[in-house]
Amino acid sequence: MAELRHNPLSGQWVIVHVEDSWGPEKYEREDHSILAKATCQFCPGREFFTPPEIEAVRRSPPGSRPNSPGWQVRIIPNKFPALRIEGDLDLRHDGMYTLSNGIGAHEVFIETPAHERNLADLNDDEMFHVIDKYQSRLNDLTKDRRFKYILIFKNYGESAGTTVEHPHSQIIALPMVPQYVAQELEGTQAYYDRYQRCVCCDMIAQEYRAGTRVITDNAQFLAFCPFASGYPFECCIIPREHTCRFDTMNDGEKYALGNILRETLAKIKGCLWDPSYNLYIHVAPVNDGPQEHFHWHIEIVPKLMRTVGLERGTGFFSVPTDPDHAARYLREAAVIARR
Amino acid sequence: MAELRHNPLSGQWVIVHVEDSWGPEKYEREDHSILAKATCQFCPGREFFTPPEIEAVRRSPPGSRPNSPGWQVRIIPNKFPALRIEGDLDLRHDGMYTLSNGIGAHEVFIETPAHERNLADLNDDEMFHVIDKYQSRLNDLTKDRRFKYILIFKNYGESAGTTVEHPHSQIIALPMVPQYVAQELEGTQAYYDRYQRCVCCDMIAQEYRAGTRVITDNAQFLAFCPFASGYPFECCIIPREHTCRFDTMNDGEKYALGNILRETLAKIKGCLWDPSYNLYIHVAPVNDGPQEHFHWHIEIVPKLMRTVGLERGTGFFSVPTDPDHAARYLREAAVIARR
Repeated sequence: MAELRHNPLSGQWVIVHVEDSWGPEKYEREDHSILAKATCQFCPGREFFTPPEIEAVRRSPPGSRPNSPGWQVRIIPNKFPALRIEGDLDLRHDGMYTLSNGIGAHEVFIETPAHERNLADLNDDEMFHVIDKYQSRLNDLTKDRRFKYILIFKNYGESAGTTVEHPHSQIIALPMVPQYVAQELEGTQAYYDRYQRCVCCDMIAQEYRAGTRVITDNAQFLAFCPFASGYPFECCIIPREHTCRFDTMNDGEKYALGNILRETLAKIKGCLWDPSYNLYIHVAPVNDGPQEHFHWHIEIVPKLMRTVGLERGTGFFSVPTDPDHAARYLREAAVIARR
Repeated sequence: MAELRHNPLSGQWVIVHVEDSWGPEKYEREDHSILAKATCQFCPGREFFTPPEIEAVRRSPPGSRPNSPGWQVRIIPNKFPALRIEGDLDLRHDGMYTLSNGIGAHEVFIETPAHERNLADLNDDEMFHVIDKYQSRLNDLTKDRRFKYILIFKNYGESAGTTVEHPHSQIIALPMVPQYVAQELEGTQAYYDRYQRCVCCDMIAQEYRAGTRVITDNAQFLAFCPFASGYPFECCIIPREHTCRFDTMNDGEKYALGNILRETLAKIKGCLWDPSYNLYIHVAPVNDGPQEHFHWHIEIVPKLMRTVGLERGTGFFSVPTDPDHAARYLREAAVIARR
């Protein structure tokens, strides 16, 4: 029989198929052939096709000119932004409805100059620079007091919503806290009010005690498959020590994060035949006073199946793979260290 | 510039692209060729391939034997249920986690004996019988006190999650209230606490005053595109008079509902080249005391684009089509009446 499991962070109930749990071989595979390199606007030498860069890591040669080749990581405004930086928010009413102007920021991290590479293939140094730039853009966008939430996310592969092959992730600054994050904040607060403890810290302790859902860890971070995963082979990467701060991570922590993120992605790639995935970093809201109870984390959701009507209509998810089973596959997947 | 719009029922914020709003021609089209008729287990004459029927409307000849041809609508248990009816719920803890057995019911409505037809192609009488059976199964499953929520939904087309071509919808009985419905209940209650009025009744009044998002109506029901639609060409069908009761609709109301549902689906089919869609009926929770403030409704969400990382990770949706624009297309789409 399936189990109904409650996610103590988000409040969601999930149907988990603990019997007849599906292994990786049961899911559809997706082809990620490189098709668009010849016309890729994110490749070196085509910098003039994109909006001017906001920041870059320039390494070969160091100090090469902006908007020219020589970068390792390059950040540009999204050419087709969902929201725009210019203007007033102008929160207003139309009868019973509330609306505002579509103010926000939307930028793209080009993670590597190499079109054919993959975040999972970067070496530790390259990963460090990606994480470092995530932090740098987060901190810069936080200065704009109109923004209440900043989301860093990545869509990899066509079925996860990518329209550009070249390895990239995105950052979006929003004037409202998105609903899923608001739910996690509520879940965190409710747990704290009840037990005077952080729900994520308790989760980490229990995951270490059980051990069955642990994928990998290092001194600073744990990667595991959540007990009430909403998607098969869902992974969570979380700082082992309580912190709501992504913005103050030091170089050692950023290096450790890059390391476990790369390892987890490489395991997903190896185990599930390079699936499409979505990755998002859930940090606390910004410009809204301290959110000390919140424990930031990364959610990685391989796109192995379609979202169906039940989930779309209710938020009630049905997951064919037991998270214990998923974690065992991922734990045992061998990956090459890339130093 | 885009607008950020707040959905007063669900609490979600949505990015609506009111400038450069996409018309139907901008979305991908999907092929719904009939491929599996020869082996379809839902077709008449193959009743023995499915679990025994729970109910049926038998019309030609009337009174034909169960599990034999002659039915107009046939309800069977789902052969691969997400949840099972037998057993105890056994709500329990595993350390900090909460879980229960996967108790529930999961049934399938075969909407017509004709494999090639479509809910949008049924005549008024056939639609009436589908709606009537929705109500009948809802009422029967409500008697099981273990269930707290009963969802009727339909996935049409491969990209909406259908695996069976033959026209069908589903009903699932759950021992917990799903999160999206819980949010709508909260939104309804919050609005009532503030204004002593029903949020949906106010919405209906405003939609009639504005007129721009109205698709069609009849004496009992209104079909419109919500102000803060989370998906392009999203449609809502709602009773014009306040009611939380689907279970007590009389024959005239069921006939009127079938009529507007068929008309709306036919407009979607005509306007958007027969897209895949998800349909769900949001009723109030069951077995949990009266929920008089809730106003039941049907949500229809054409599947015109992939869900992308931003939405999956935050619940913050970005919609390329202005709902006013969508409603105009749907309003003007001519459909044939089928009496």
